[in-house]
Amino acid sequence: MSETTRYRCELAWLPPGDVHADVVVEVRAGRIVSITSGLEGSEQTPSDTVRLDGLVLPGTANTHSHAFHRVLRGATHANGGTFWTWRELMYRAAAALDPDGYRALARAVFAEMASAGFTSVGEFHYLHHRADGRRHPDANAMGAALVAAARDAGIRLTLLDACYLAAGPGRPTTGTQTRFDDGDAAGWAARVEDLHRAHAADDVVVGAAVHSVRAVPLDEIPVVAAWARAHDAPLHVHVSEQPAENEACLAAYGRTPVRVLADAGALGPRTSAVHATHLSPDDVADLAGAGALVSLCPTTEADLGDGIGPVSELVAAGVRFTLGTDSHASIDPFEEARRAEWDQRLTHHQRGNLTVEALLRALTDDGQASLGYADAGRLEPGARADLVAVDLGSTRTAGADPATAAATVVFAASAADVTDVIVDGRRVVRDREHVLGDVAGILAEAVAAVRAADHHA
Amino acid sequence: MSETTRYRCELAWLPPGDVHADVVVEVRAGRIVSITSGLEGSEQTPSDTVRLDGLVLPGTANTHSHAFHRVLRGATHANGGTFWTWRELMYRAAAALDPDGYRALARAVFAEMASAGFTSVGEFHYLHHRADGRRHPDANAMGAALVAAARDAGIRLTLLDACYLAAGPGRPTTGTQTRFDDGDAAGWAARVEDLHRAHAADDVVVGAAVHSVRAVPLDEIPVVAAWARAHDAPLHVHVSEQPAENEACLAAYGRTPVRVLADAGALGPRTSAVHATHLSPDDVADLAGAGALVSLCPTTEADLGDGIGPVSELVAAGVRFTLGTDSHASIDPFEEARRAEWDQRLTHHQRGNLTVEALLRALTDDGQASLGYADAGRLEPGARADLVAVDLGSTRTAGADPATAAATVVFAASAADVTDVIVDGRRVVRDREHVLGDVAGILAEAVAAVRAADHHA
Repeated sequence: MSETTRYRCELAWLPPGDVHADVVVEVRAGRIVSITSGLEGSEQTPSDTVRLDGLVLPGTANTHSHAFHRVLRGATHANGGTFWTWRELMYRAAAALDPDGYRALARAVFAEMASAGFTSVGEFHYLHHRADGRRHPDANAMGAALVAAARDAGIRLTLLDACYLAAGPGRPTTGTQTRFDDGDAAGWAARVEDLHRAHAADDVVVGAAVHSVRAVPLDEIPVVAAWARAHDAPLHVHVSEQPAENEACLAAYGRTPVRVLADAGALGPRTSAVHATHLSPDDVADLAGAGALVSLCPTTEADLGDGIGPVSELVAAGVRFTLGTDSHASIDPFEEARRAEWDQRLTHHQRGNLTVEALLRALTDDGQASLGYADAGRLEPGARADLVAVDLGSTRTAGADPATAAATVVFAASAADVTDVIVDGRRVVRDREHVLGDVAGILAEAVAAVRAADHHA
Repeated sequence: MSETTRYRCELAWLPPGDVHADVVVEVRAGRIVSITSGLEGSEQTPSDTVRLDGLVLPGTANTHSHAFHRVLRGATHANGGTFWTWRELMYRAAAALDPDGYRALARAVFAEMASAGFTSVGEFHYLHHRADGRRHPDANAMGAALVAAARDAGIRLTLLDACYLAAGPGRPTTGTQTRFDDGDAAGWAARVEDLHRAHAADDVVVGAAVHSVRAVPLDEIPVVAAWARAHDAPLHVHVSEQPAENEACLAAYGRTPVRVLADAGALGPRTSAVHATHLSPDDVADLAGAGALVSLCPTTEADLGDGIGPVSELVAAGVRFTLGTDSHASIDPFEEARRAEWDQRLTHHQRGNLTVEALLRALTDDGQASLGYADAGRLEPGARADLVAVDLGSTRTAGADPATAAATVVFAASAADVTDVIVDGRRVVRDREHVLGDVAGILAEAVAAVRAADHHA
């Protein structure tokens, strides 16, 4: 018989999207068993109750991550910092990673995420093989490293194993890309089937990814989509991040990337189109018709100069969106959320495009669902016991009015305001302290190790 | 005879824009007297030397502030959060302020700024009179409150006293606006002359502001410009923040706001055009020809849906830019700097528009100059002794390579990474602790007091 823990929240954001005061959340065996609100003054707090100050949110989901890109933070802006500076350094960081180094780095990055209030991460994973393209003795050694890293860091993982077979339509992979390459989609599926058998668990979803319509030939995409359907697994795809990608796709196939995916049977309610920045009105309709989601990565899209996508139009068409930190220029759920709206304001010259409630749903309920955790992201009985407490008394949030506390968190809080994080009932962060201890120190060490491996290569 | 203090900086950003290791900065009587770099291993650190870890920058300048807008942070996004939600709440906050409340609020906000690494602030001040429009017994009581608040908080002030005479071309001020109104520009100049006489000091510059071409009639603008010229004082103007402002100006005067200012003799090397978002190519040329600066406020411009200005074009034309936190949706010099570049990336679809060095110059040297502190913003002998130490070992900055430390600070650090701030030789922030103590608590109290005054009004 498992123990019950009671959390008494100063404020909590409860379905369908309201802030309530004095909320008691009872947790047993990693699940929420009851929620009672509005107890102020009506009873003493029992001594075994854990107080959570500030606003408590359900767990937030980071729906698009490339953990190893964290090495590049701040390091790709020299000499003007073009896209090519970034890409060259990204490939060098990739080349320097083996399973041990990958685990150490991902552990640090996932701990940074958990400290920021993310309870799940979708790791879009394509560093499958050795730097020279040969298989590891365990062909899924790199995926296994990510699973171990997520468990170390106390965050749920959705391992979105990416099929990556080509440098472009009709062009084979070369150089560093060969370590992404499984030969063909059948080879990818056989490896991922092993990965699924070995690692799928209550805290690990094995999902599928088509790296992009550039990297997977037209006739191979259905194989990946079929694997995902057969396992009822999430399927994520980089879609229309840059105009050049659309142009190449139109030139090769006479269709947009979204239409290519639709024709290949890769669009459905488990599909997340990552970025979805440069879409036609037909693309928006195709995504809406399929019930697909889009994963926005606002800080990365700004950092890489991708552009601002038609998010208001997608939402108007009924498409759900989620949020990811992608290249980890920043790891902060609230910054991604407010940027999604601020970018719409900048392009539409008006406020109030995406509501506070819509942004929080993207971070929580819809984000968790897109990663295969349909039972997370809501504070309600039966759901996974994810709780994220956000300080309303920091320099950033001081002066918050309880009536608008949710807006304060979305528009003014930062990851540094997250004080406590409970994942599946486990208290991973307590008073801003992660269970692993000094996350910044762990990050510094892990990044330095990758840099040293690169210099020795 | 005054004492000498030695600061030994792990890394420091020195003119013309390079990071040096092991830099000793000697300070006497609020000025830098010597700078020596590259001492590693060459001598013992004397026991009276203060170590500053991380990257040390010169003092950063917040060139556009409306301190009282801090009350609105996070509170204006309900019901879609339109521009009108924001404006109504902003006018209500203004109506609730008297000199004592204004001083308490500004003290807290200025302390937040100093903690973030700002050593000077340009307060664009138009809350001159009582809520009903009558003069205070001291007509400059509100300005005096700002001076006292800045001294309390340990930040230099440039009090940009704004002339505000009309609701629009040919339309008198009404309601809350009457407290902004001096009747005519001669009345404004007489009051500001008193302000200058009473308050100009080594740590207080009294500057002039034309609120906008909307709020100052055409024939009154030269009076303000003449006052600024006569005192060699900064002159700031809100310019072309929203398309509607340009349309109204064209309708009334047949010219753009920039051209109106040029024709009124209000553009020169002491002029800062605030926002400058919606400019014509001729406007860019006019600003460049006059040697004027532009003050960008990227988080506010995003929050209010202003749009993205032609910053790359301005820079190409030789116009210097500076950065301000304006409505204080955020108070973070590094966020403003990276947003300036990220917004350009989003609009131009390429990286490397504004360099790291240009962004740091905007925050420091050019920012301080635009506020009338031409002797600040550079780590060099003779300059004001402003030093800002930024932690390179937080979760955000961990893994920084010393070779790219300046880029790490601009693109990854936050205000929370500022550990030490020295203003004119005075250590205002030490190990993240402001001399006033609990800045978040002071903010919470000051904001609550304004909200209570509003409810009682």
